[in-house]
Amino acid sequence: MWKSNPRGIIGFATHSSPPAASITMKWYLVAALLTVLTSSQGILTTLSQSNGGYKYDYATVPFLAEVFKLLVSSVLLWRECKSSPSVRMTTDWKSIRLYPIPSIIYLIHNNVQFATLTYVDTSTYQIMGNLKIVTTGILFRLFLKKKLSNLQWMAIVLLAVGTTTSQVKGCGATSCDSLFSSPIPGYLLGILSACLSALAGVYTEFLMKKNNDSLYWQNVQLYTFGSIFNMGRLILDDFGSGFEKGPWWQRLFNGYTITTWLVVLNLGSTGLLVSWLMKYADNIVKVYSTSMAMLLTMIISVYLFSFKPTLQLFLGIIICMMSLHMYFAPPSMLVDIPPTVKEDPLILREVTVEKRTGS
Amino acid sequence: MWKSNPRGIIGFATHSSPPAASITMKWYLVAALLTVLTSSQGILTTLSQSNGGYKYDYATVPFLAEVFKLLVSSVLLWRECKSSPSVRMTTDWKSIRLYPIPSIIYLIHNNVQFATLTYVDTSTYQIMGNLKIVTTGILFRLFLKKKLSNLQWMAIVLLAVGTTTSQVKGCGATSCDSLFSSPIPGYLLGILSACLSALAGVYTEFLMKKNNDSLYWQNVQLYTFGSIFNMGRLILDDFGSGFEKGPWWQRLFNGYTITTWLVVLNLGSTGLLVSWLMKYADNIVKVYSTSMAMLLTMIISVYLFSFKPTLQLFLGIIICMMSLHMYFAPPSMLVDIPPTVKEDPLILREVTVEKRTGS
Repeated sequence: MWKSNPRGIIGFATHSSPPAASITMKWYLVAALLTVLTSSQGILTTLSQSNGGYKYDYATVPFLAEVFKLLVSSVLLWRECKSSPSVRMTTDWKSIRLYPIPSIIYLIHNNVQFATLTYVDTSTYQIMGNLKIVTTGILFRLFLKKKLSNLQWMAIVLLAVGTTTSQVKGCGATSCDSLFSSPIPGYLLGILSACLSALAGVYTEFLMKKNNDSLYWQNVQLYTFGSIFNMGRLILDDFGSGFEKGPWWQRLFNGYTITTWLVVLNLGSTGLLVSWLMKYADNIVKVYSTSMAMLLTMIISVYLFSFKPTLQLFLGIIICMMSLHMYFAPPSMLVDIPPTVKEDPLILREVTVEKRTGS
Repeated sequence: MWKSNPRGIIGFATHSSPPAASITMKWYLVAALLTVLTSSQGILTTLSQSNGGYKYDYATVPFLAEVFKLLVSSVLLWRECKSSPSVRMTTDWKSIRLYPIPSIIYLIHNNVQFATLTYVDTSTYQIMGNLKIVTTGILFRLFLKKKLSNLQWMAIVLLAVGTTTSQVKGCGATSCDSLFSSPIPGYLLGILSACLSALAGVYTEFLMKKNNDSLYWQNVQLYTFGSIFNMGRLILDDFGSGFEKGPWWQRLFNGYTITTWLVVLNLGSTGLLVSWLMKYADNIVKVYSTSMAMLLTMIISVYLFSFKPTLQLFLGIIICMMSLHMYFAPPSMLVDIPPTVKEDPLILREVTVEKRTGS
């Protein structure tokens, strides 16, 4: 199902074809690592706050993460070029001009997100965010022409249901705003937001898979534009605040602690892993990784921040685990193939005995 | 999968073999009817209350329902005997003595239920009640030797998860007792209760299917013992209260209204349908019917008693619908059979083009 490539392991450039089992292993490992790192992201971000707020400018974090990813990818590309003369790099403008598009979609998405939050509260926004699991499945099918079985569709819906279940506001929650009482534009913007988020993912997968270019070269292009767009945001922020905190390059590392740097490194690393998955696995794998990460964060929060474990978290975890198994397990493990009509041995035996004794 | 018998349609004795499609139809219809009637049971019982309490002795309802079922089955058996001389009826004591056992299991179950409620609150009890879906699956497998596919096991667990999700206490619930803070004996009794409930169902299925006896004859035996055990309970109640309200037969119809009679008829009818399903379908079909009925009751309550619809009810319904489809849909509808490794046409095409142009 996934096109895997031995060059794909970040930092381990090898040119021999590994056996199929090892390709699967790699894919699993990257997805598992993404889950752990995405989950750490939430925890680290919370830990980087002091007194419930940020002492640093949060907008600098994604910018530095883009720069980190660009540096790592550049070094890896340079190493790849040194070790092999035949690194595939498409350098014509017709190809390069496609790489800013994910950044542009994310830019639009951020603004839609902002607009949505003027209509709905954050918890409703969070619940609606699970829609992107389903929209990703739909765009994955429509744009990348990937066929999903009936069961895989059900698994995708169940994943969205499972993550939503874990977020159901429990008994004793402070605010009781109902999901069903938001204004219509709030829902429409929520759906648009889910579509844009899915589109960015599906488009990136298309970009990474459309040719055999080196992953590192593709990354360099993606992250160059990513860095530019994030810098643009910092500049706009400067103009918005009338430069009262000084230009962005002066306040770049203001209030940074070790934890803040860990947040940057972590965000950068998850970005690199997502990029790898987009080329060698697919969007659905990424969606599962990040959904599982959300649940893992909630579990860790129970221990770390003494959150009260809820029944809905427990149910959500079971539902998502089932969904994972339904989506990825081979059909032969799930159903009996070929399907044969089974006779009940109990009934058959009793009937036979009865006929023999003539009762 | 199910042993179906044309004589099985209640009230329509026919001796010709109908085509397979019609057998499936019958099974679906009976299950759907059971869902509607079980759901009405909750609604009717609520409607039969006045000022939040019962004006009649509730213990008389199951007794009268047993008598109703006994009467209906006797009439149907008599009609069957009249129209055909070869009605199968095993009348030796070795067979008859097996028929009080379901009543005895239910008697023990009622007492365990009572003991459980001294340890846990009613909402925890209700949540734990969903365990019987899983225990039914397990005993169905162990005692009736029915093989379930991996996917069907997952469907059974999801059904339990779905019904539990719909019952998660929402934001703004009056009491916030946590499911996780009950004493250990409460959980153990809850598990025992779920096992006994499953055992009664599985044993009844064994009883109904162990030979080709007429369904009506089997019913007559079941309900005769059912009536006796229920009468026994009324007598015990009399002794318990020191006959202060008079003997049971004097207060039998006290405070009965049309609605109370509908409750009795409804309970009796659901019993007859369950009996039919035990002989011609199985316990899992019954479990799905009654679980769906629980959700249907909640939906109807939204309209009838202006209950506030919750997100968890909505999620629970989706989960249970998925579970239903997973369990009953033919495997060929769920997964692609035979499983073949599909190449991504997008990638293949791009690679080919690239090689041809030599870029």
